[in-house]
Amino acid sequence: MLVHGKHYRTIWLKDGEESIVQIIDQRLLPHQFVIEDLKSVAEVITAIKDMHVRGAGLIGAAAGYGMYLASLEAATSSDIDESLLDFAHELKSSRPTAVNLEWAVNRQLVAIEKGETVDEKINIAKETAISIANEDASFCKSIGLHGVKLIAEISNQKNGEPVNILTHCNAGWLAFTDFGSATSPIYQSHDQGLKVHVWVDETRPRNQGSKLTAWELLNHGVPHTIIADNTGGHLMQTGKVDMVITGADRVTRTGDVANKIGTYLKALAAMDNIIPFYVAIPSSTIDWHLRNGLAEIPIEERDEKEVKYMDGLANNQLTTILIAPEQSPAANYGFDVTPSRLISGLITERGVCDASEVGLLDLFPEKK
Amino acid sequence: MLVHGKHYRTIWLKDGEESIVQIIDQRLLPHQFVIEDLKSVAEVITAIKDMHVRGAGLIGAAAGYGMYLASLEAATSSDIDESLLDFAHELKSSRPTAVNLEWAVNRQLVAIEKGETVDEKINIAKETAISIANEDASFCKSIGLHGVKLIAEISNQKNGEPVNILTHCNAGWLAFTDFGSATSPIYQSHDQGLKVHVWVDETRPRNQGSKLTAWELLNHGVPHTIIADNTGGHLMQTGKVDMVITGADRVTRTGDVANKIGTYLKALAAMDNIIPFYVAIPSSTIDWHLRNGLAEIPIEERDEKEVKYMDGLANNQLTTILIAPEQSPAANYGFDVTPSRLISGLITERGVCDASEVGLLDLFPEKK
Repeated sequence: MLVHGKHYRTIWLKDGEESIVQIIDQRLLPHQFVIEDLKSVAEVITAIKDMHVRGAGLIGAAAGYGMYLASLEAATSSDIDESLLDFAHELKSSRPTAVNLEWAVNRQLVAIEKGETVDEKINIAKETAISIANEDASFCKSIGLHGVKLIAEISNQKNGEPVNILTHCNAGWLAFTDFGSATSPIYQSHDQGLKVHVWVDETRPRNQGSKLTAWELLNHGVPHTIIADNTGGHLMQTGKVDMVITGADRVTRTGDVANKIGTYLKALAAMDNIIPFYVAIPSSTIDWHLRNGLAEIPIEERDEKEVKYMDGLANNQLTTILIAPEQSPAANYGFDVTPSRLISGLITERGVCDASEVGLLDLFPEKK
Repeated sequence: MLVHGKHYRTIWLKDGEESIVQIIDQRLLPHQFVIEDLKSVAEVITAIKDMHVRGAGLIGAAAGYGMYLASLEAATSSDIDESLLDFAHELKSSRPTAVNLEWAVNRQLVAIEKGETVDEKINIAKETAISIANEDASFCKSIGLHGVKLIAEISNQKNGEPVNILTHCNAGWLAFTDFGSATSPIYQSHDQGLKVHVWVDETRPRNQGSKLTAWELLNHGVPHTIIADNTGGHLMQTGKVDMVITGADRVTRTGDVANKIGTYLKALAAMDNIIPFYVAIPSSTIDWHLRNGLAEIPIEERDEKEVKYMDGLANNQLTTILIAPEQSPAANYGFDVTPSRLISGLITERGVCDASEVGLLDLFPEKK
């Protein structure tokens, strides 16, 4: 999407110097827009581990490009295949719970194996990395095409007045290679000339909403307003929200959704005020083995420092401040589970369906 | 309540120097505990206007003490009564929407009028200021005595295991002269040896939870954990919350509750998980003229800077940081309305009642 008027993806090969992978260093957003060169597998691992890049889709793409850099490095070793396996192992360990990471590395290993010469292997690794990134963007684009119809319907009902969409966390293009999941219908509606306005939950404690989603929307020119996470209920009670669209980290076969902590509270408020609540996901997010989100999805507990400290800009310097009594403990749960009964529908790359096993299997009959 | 092992109220006359009013400068909490001397009406007005003191009960008490300082200053003027009226007007204007402020100033004017000599007037003003503060503490203490029974019941059901209580914002002793409203049952349970543990919502955007409530509980020795406002739903879904107690800014005759933004979301989650949700209030919070909270209670919109900037401690200096893109707009609604249907009961100084007109009139038959 657009940054300072120019189209960017979150990861790409450097123009004219294709042994270098470039990314946006997301740790510095929204305060600084810095493009980082990754020249080795080690640098890719650092970028994944230290969250220069984050988000399921983007981590997968970064792993794909990481394996391409691995093929270049392995080419000089005595046994390219063995060396590639070592790099693959290192890459997979950089964020062990990221499903897309393992998936992308394995896809590369299977693909590269088919190359007979070193040059062929390198070429396959490069093409596969590009394919992984393109497919991610293409899935997100499809999600958007299906989601636009939902927004257009509300826009019609409102005679073209802006459709107010609330979103939580960052399921934006920064979490994928382009478009995003929850934001894809929004960007495509905006680009088609439908009037939209986005309520951006700041999304404590890591503030991915005010740091990343707001920055995305600002740069792409989409009207938006940042709110404290506490605010959504009041906005819904007073008719200021027409629909909610969030992303998800994991969706069960039955349509339960694990997403950033606080999603469940917004879903309750949407239900209480009869406001449609949609979850936009590429199908890779669906865990077909799970049936009960609350019982089966483990919820990550993170460092209490994310609650008690906050970083931002003071005198143009990135600064960390303490915002609570240092001796008070804090708890930091990363996700919550929104039961399918609160969800109006899932927006996938194949279309929109009920948040239920019947609805999902209708779109994905091969999973029956 | 206790600070560094010593009992404090939020406002008092200086020991041995009774022409000076002392307060805790709450702007500096939790990072610095500073006691401030107020020696004139002008200093009291600054303290109220710039929020060195805040909270309905404490603002009322500060206004009472302000009128006592006014009587000292007016004593040297040619017409003490006229001068007192001028001071009264200035005090009332310091935070125009604070109901207790006007109430306390008017009560002082009526009382002081009865004094015949200047000395009598000063004496009445002093005694009335002390009475206002004492009554506030006494009402809060009564709220606590009634609320303890609710906690004790859950404690019994749990065979003495800690009762996990979630609270939102600061309805603590810092908002009154002592005990607090929502916190009073908690402090009194703790002091009686009942095991309690408090989940403290940080309460964005002004963070009264992590700044004030956590500081209070830490200093009084009550076990507690700070959480992002997004977290309560997950805790309730997973059995980690036994009850919710909040305060309120305004309660209708029918039991609808206006309280800090986000309260409604927690009430929805409590209802969804069948967890008791109580609101603790002195009866001065009830607006007997209102019947429909959502339709009739105006919601204050505050400066967007409170959402986009944050203050805290960096290198032992109070520092303000920007936490969002400067060009992104933010909205800042101060309160939301929790409909009475979501509230298990109101804890007042006269006892616990249903959040309904029938319930309230049963406790306050004089309002029929």
